[in-house]
Amino acid sequence: MFEEKLKEFEPIFYPKSIAVVGASATSIKAGSLWVENLRSAGFPGLIYPVGSSGGRIGDLKILPSLRLIPGEVDYVIVAVPRQSALELLDDCAAKNVKAVHFFTAGFSETDTQQGRKLEEQMLDKARQGNMRIIGPNCIGVYCPEHRIPLLMGILGENGSVGFVSQSGGIATKLVTIGIARHINYSKGVSFGNGIDLDASDFLQYMAADPKTKVIGAYLEGTRDGTRLFKTMRKVAEVKPLVVWKGGRTEAGAQAALSHTGSLASSAAVWSAALKQAGAIEVHSLEELTDTLLIFQQFGHGQGIRAAIIGGLADGGGGNSVAAGDACIENGLQVPPLSFETKRKLSELLGEVGGILCNPIDVSQAQFRGLATLFQAIDLIVKDTIGDVVLIQEDTEILLPIYSQKGLEEINEFFIELAGRQNKPVIVVLPPGSVEANRLRIEQRLLEASIPVFGSMERAARAICRLNQYSCWQEAK
Amino acid sequence: MFEEKLKEFEPIFYPKSIAVVGASATSIKAGSLWVENLRSAGFPGLIYPVGSSGGRIGDLKILPSLRLIPGEVDYVIVAVPRQSALELLDDCAAKNVKAVHFFTAGFSETDTQQGRKLEEQMLDKARQGNMRIIGPNCIGVYCPEHRIPLLMGILGENGSVGFVSQSGGIATKLVTIGIARHINYSKGVSFGNGIDLDASDFLQYMAADPKTKVIGAYLEGTRDGTRLFKTMRKVAEVKPLVVWKGGRTEAGAQAALSHTGSLASSAAVWSAALKQAGAIEVHSLEELTDTLLIFQQFGHGQGIRAAIIGGLADGGGGNSVAAGDACIENGLQVPPLSFETKRKLSELLGEVGGILCNPIDVSQAQFRGLATLFQAIDLIVKDTIGDVVLIQEDTEILLPIYSQKGLEEINEFFIELAGRQNKPVIVVLPPGSVEANRLRIEQRLLEASIPVFGSMERAARAICRLNQYSCWQEAK
Repeated sequence: MFEEKLKEFEPIFYPKSIAVVGASATSIKAGSLWVENLRSAGFPGLIYPVGSSGGRIGDLKILPSLRLIPGEVDYVIVAVPRQSALELLDDCAAKNVKAVHFFTAGFSETDTQQGRKLEEQMLDKARQGNMRIIGPNCIGVYCPEHRIPLLMGILGENGSVGFVSQSGGIATKLVTIGIARHINYSKGVSFGNGIDLDASDFLQYMAADPKTKVIGAYLEGTRDGTRLFKTMRKVAEVKPLVVWKGGRTEAGAQAALSHTGSLASSAAVWSAALKQAGAIEVHSLEELTDTLLIFQQFGHGQGIRAAIIGGLADGGGGNSVAAGDACIENGLQVPPLSFETKRKLSELLGEVGGILCNPIDVSQAQFRGLATLFQAIDLIVKDTIGDVVLIQEDTEILLPIYSQKGLEEINEFFIELAGRQNKPVIVVLPPGSVEANRLRIEQRLLEASIPVFGSMERAARAICRLNQYSCWQEAK
Repeated sequence: MFEEKLKEFEPIFYPKSIAVVGASATSIKAGSLWVENLRSAGFPGLIYPVGSSGGRIGDLKILPSLRLIPGEVDYVIVAVPRQSALELLDDCAAKNVKAVHFFTAGFSETDTQQGRKLEEQMLDKARQGNMRIIGPNCIGVYCPEHRIPLLMGILGENGSVGFVSQSGGIATKLVTIGIARHINYSKGVSFGNGIDLDASDFLQYMAADPKTKVIGAYLEGTRDGTRLFKTMRKVAEVKPLVVWKGGRTEAGAQAALSHTGSLASSAAVWSAALKQAGAIEVHSLEELTDTLLIFQQFGHGQGIRAAIIGGLADGGGGNSVAAGDACIENGLQVPPLSFETKRKLSELLGEVGGILCNPIDVSQAQFRGLATLFQAIDLIVKDTIGDVVLIQEDTEILLPIYSQKGLEEINEFFIELAGRQNKPVIVVLPPGSVEANRLRIEQRLLEASIPVFGSMERAARAICRLNQYSCWQEAK
């Protein structure tokens, strides 16, 4: 599906050469920053800085005009004031450029006649020159595989998650949170005002891209809703598509107008259309990244019946109650343990002090050692009542009881457990008073492909969204 | 109100002497842990370890029986098996003990006839002996002012927040999160099965306690709903009361039964009753601590119109859209900036690239330096449209632009700003890719009494709850 996009977008995500217009040898301009960042990221193609200052950036000579570039130019990054936009597009056409990314802002998002007119003229020139425009007012392309970093030089690992974001700020957040939580992107794009290429085009490309397994989108508005929702419907047929719509409220919509010139339509209309299209709607950056993380790890849902394990060392009572509430209120099912498992657990842990139902409070294992704890968890995981295993780990309770060494042993057990059987294992690691230790564990688990969430609520919502897509796929 | 409780509970929260039954010189028993923890916390009263092992814990001699303690005993902590409970209460009565805290579990929460009967007999003995029981199946009292730590020896700073928790695990979480987020407690209690003193009693005490300004409660169930809700209504008259009801769902309620022997009633009934009582209902540990933090800092609401500032260095566009949505969807109002402020900001920051509405994206200040950023924030804070100022700070965007020094300067400005004018200043500091830097800033702001939240959604909800109480107070 949309296979034609792969060739068309090749110069955008895998350009052989990039020109940066607005580079300077003497001052810290955005253009110079783009050049520096491409260089230090190790971009494998040619880089041509263009600017009036003359001089060099590193070993690269700054050329006074795009037309003077000796070789072919696939992709141009523009960081000069909007007044030069039209002339620059003439230069690009003369050089047979394939795609022009305007970092430059000051167009329809300023809500002026002048801004809107300039965009129309740019679009005309692009069509005449057979070029595609990304933006204006955006930070453009991110492609770790081809060593294209984000504006600030941010570059995470290569992975399987694609993103399409109207906002550069949200794109940056997606990538930085991705680095922290091991959400690794195949590619991403921030397309700002989207006067030519917009969400639909990039979604089609990501649907066709064999490197992309799941797609996340942050959208504020669209100039062609019919096309967008038709596209989404087709994309969702082949890959999970998670959409966060910004500008759902009056204050949000007002900001969206000033931000990307987007006319936001009603939140209810969007929600209904997203549902119909088979896209998974989320409502915040937290929900978007949580959902991308779980899709990256598991790909599809295996069911919503959760076996919830808590109180690994102590304090599992209230947490079990809270975990049961959190899971059920956020859409999971929490069936009781089978009689047989309950009996075995009770033999193993004793009758008093734990809760041998589901959620299961295994805190009595603390008096019998880690081997007993692991045995208890094994029994629970083997019980057929759970499609997915949710473990709450409270670092500040575990640490004084088991010390750092025991803590590590417990987490290595989770990793081994996740590896040797088929049920998804998910860890809830809430913030507390030993943040440095908690963050280390989080990194270790994420490295080993175990999804980690900051609260049971967030884990439950992510699991439900994973299953929502599988259900839609089956029912459609 | 409830002033009689102050004297009655004096031996519980400010005991002159504590006996710990179940201490041992040779093995690591819970009783020994209590003794060690009281000692290392610097408990100013007398500590008497009691146990059959003989020997010493530090310089304290372990006595074979409670009856052999030479002086008076206010408070007894019991960590021996349930079989000894009745005999022990006889010993306590003989020593004229005021209150007995049963850490011991294995009573009605095991859902057995035997467990329930034992509780009835204990209650009879306590009444005959004119003693109060805390628990059984709980971790009892926390009082930083009197150097009584929680079970694991956890002891935070002395403060003005009281808590009443049926669960010891949740009590521990409240205290550890409190230490991390500078929520400082006057006192707290975990009362488990609550066969004698229960939520109503402790709430009455906290209402009367002059050291407590706001009360948080985690409750799973009650044996006397009428009394509890009458009490809550009276408590809410004098102090904000924030209640998290655990066991709202079937899985949660099942766990609550096994945890504290609580029969949970319908979530809807509780919600309605809490509303009527003027208590503020929350649904998770996160919401409870967020709400206690904001009450601790501000005491009462000053309005729900938010001035939202973002994009301190860059990336403020999409974040402004998202912040507007998050605030409005969670109950705040986000009125547009006044024309005058907008004009001044536009002079200061320029027309292009920022969003000069509300939420306000001040990112263009990055090209003009920190003094301009501070001027812009001052202008926004002075605008009368906001009752409260919400600032989103994205550490991983600020750090590369302003470096650690600039980051510190920005946060010192927030602290100074919060100090020199009357509007509450609240900072949203979302997690990202530079956690160590973010955590340092968070600590600095919290130390300076600026509430910090991990997301705009959480901040908005907390502000609404602050105002919910003020509205109820005015309307009642």
